[in-house]
Amino acid sequence: DKKLKVFTCNANPQLAQEIAKALDIELGISHVTRFSDGEIRVKLEESVRGCDVFVIQPTSAPCNEHLMELLIMVDALKRASAGTINVVIPYYGYARQDRKARARDPITAKLVANLIQTAGAHRVITMDLHAGQIQGFFDIPVDHLIAEPILASYFEEKNLEDIVVVSPDMGGVTRARGMAERLGAPIAIIDKRRPEPNVAEVMNIIGSIEGKTAIMIDDIIDTAGTITLGAKALIERGAKAVYACCTHPVFSGPAIQRLEDSVIREVVVTNSIYLPEEKRSSKIVVRSVANLIAQAIERIHNEESVSTLFD
Amino acid sequence: DKKLKVFTCNANPQLAQEIAKALDIELGISHVTRFSDGEIRVKLEESVRGCDVFVIQPTSAPCNEHLMELLIMVDALKRASAGTINVVIPYYGYARQDRKARARDPITAKLVANLIQTAGAHRVITMDLHAGQIQGFFDIPVDHLIAEPILASYFEEKNLEDIVVVSPDMGGVTRARGMAERLGAPIAIIDKRRPEPNVAEVMNIIGSIEGKTAIMIDDIIDTAGTITLGAKALIERGAKAVYACCTHPVFSGPAIQRLEDSVIREVVVTNSIYLPEEKRSSKIVVRSVANLIAQAIERIHNEESVSTLFD
Ligand SMILES: Nc1ncnc2c1ncn2[C@@H]1O[C@H](COP(=O)(O)O)[C@@H](O)[C@H]1O
Ligand SMILES: Nc1ncnc2c1ncn2[C@@H]1O[C@H](COP(=O)(O)O)[C@@H](O)[C@H]1O
Repeated sequence: DKKLKVFTCNANPQLAQEIAKALDIELGISHVTRFSDGEIRVKLEESVRGCDVFVIQPTSAPCNEHLMELLIMVDALKRASAGTINVVIPYYGYARQDRKARARDPITAKLVANLIQTAGAHRVITMDLHAGQIQGFFDIPVDHLIAEPILASYFEEKNLEDIVVVSPDMGGVTRARGMAERLGAPIAIIDKRRPEPNVAEVMNIIGSIEGKTAIMIDDIIDTAGTITLGAKALIERGAKAVYACCTHPVFSGPAIQRLEDSVIREVVVTNSIYLPEEKRSSKIVVRSVANLIAQAIERIHNEESVSTLFD
Repeated sequence: DKKLKVFTCNANPQLAQEIAKALDIELGISHVTRFSDGEIRVKLEESVRGCDVFVIQPTSAPCNEHLMELLIMVDALKRASAGTINVVIPYYGYARQDRKARARDPITAKLVANLIQTAGAHRVITMDLHAGQIQGFFDIPVDHLIAEPILASYFEEKNLEDIVVVSPDMGGVTRARGMAERLGAPIAIIDKRRPEPNVAEVMNIIGSIEGKTAIMIDDIIDTAGTITLGAKALIERGAKAVYACCTHPVFSGPAIQRLEDSVIREVVVTNSIYLPEEKRSSKIVVRSVANLIAQAIERIHNEESVSTLFD
């Protein structure tokens, strides 16, 4: 009977604490610091010999730092004879570099999968991957959790009337349909062209939105260009109000300012990525995925099926 | 007959340019930039199909950024059908984490070796590794270049009289002996205890230094604590003057200030690590390793032996 231990690196210790609390255990004691030259130093302050170890670390910005912290932590756990090493990566950085979109592109999402395996991880728990195919980049088990019910329940509780779920682009249609089914609402799609990354260009809207309350859904909100321009287009074409939600609040560059300045009433996100004070605002509502992850950890530790957490 | 191409990431493009010039070729065109959220974006702007490719990238600070740049570059080269991928890492970051010094330590130098191989490198060219054993962390060929002749020639040209080569600690004795042999000088050793990393504590001096000009040698000068306290001790015990040299000028934290304030007359270093303006001073002399590396590249490309460059 293996002992369960949960550790964190520096990307989201707040989430790790919540998860430990939900599991009714103390977080494992470790220190992930820097030497004077910026090299990462990992110190495990307690034995992990034979334990089922879970490391909580989204590979959010600064993504290279957070990824390396995770890899070095896994190396330390491996050499300290951990029984199983399970990496919990609620937000999987580099997921958008998942194919050769242009000649000579790297496929960094696959490289990262290889690095995680090389370091010595036995299992990955992640959430709302940008592309489900990334599961296949691993040769170890991947549990792919879904935050949709958590986001949906927020809107259910709000009791909004006459809603339509809107996908901000063609790539998000499946996600929008899932949310629409949960909310018993129709869907609409914004058909846009994006001339360059991080620059969004709104085109026409497929589906009926006039007089309705739109709920836009995406997996990632990064610079918020796509979502805010989409919201503007929705209001211009007669939507009554616009809400937005996403699993992963990357919120880089002008994101917060754009969301503040936008017609969007509320942006519902999860804590898959920690939001520092300067990335919060009165519009941003954070819902926790700690209980969902804690349940997954508990089931994996007890060798039970996790699949019912996937929908 | 494979074509030779040299690429650089962002750690030391100046050195890469010098190497390309010494090889009488143009640097390969590539762009290693950042997306808005800090993720690395690598673009190869020319074909590498079937080529002998060399990537110049010391994994100096910010070491995690520079390591990830290298790994993603290698991934892009691999997927673009490069014939051979040779990574030139003049300064190998994380080399000091090369063994379990304490219980549950990671061995990050080995992890990094595994990451480089996993990304798809076929060969490593490096210089003055903190521990020669790191060569054995790789299962691919490693060419280990030595900057000692370059540092030694500087002092030979200076024609200093009555010199003694000093190792700043017990770990550097072999290195000091090598330099002493080149300069036809005796050696001395500073026997110190270091209570904590980046904090140096000087103890007694083994060997005769009175009235002599001391040349201290180390592989890395990081915070410069060891070398400046050692120099102070040498002067206090009667040395006439102190010079210092090292292959890798890491120069983190208080290093530059300490060197400026110290009794050391000159610090001779190589350009294995690029020194930005704020890390230069009138005391610091930089000698280039570009020709040495260019020779190694030429020989590897021509399938000739590189071993004569090792001493
Ligand atoms: N971190 C990033 N930030 C912005 N764009 C990215 C990032 N990583 C990859 N991309 C781009 O996003 C596109 C993939 O996005 P998608 O079509 O939504 O899967 C590719 O064209 C990539 O060049
Ligand atoms: N980047 C670093 N900066 C300072 N000390 C380090 C660094 N990496 C490893 N160390 C420490 O340096 C010691 C190894 O140095 P050495 O005895 O010179 O091989 C170990 O005790 C490490 O904890």
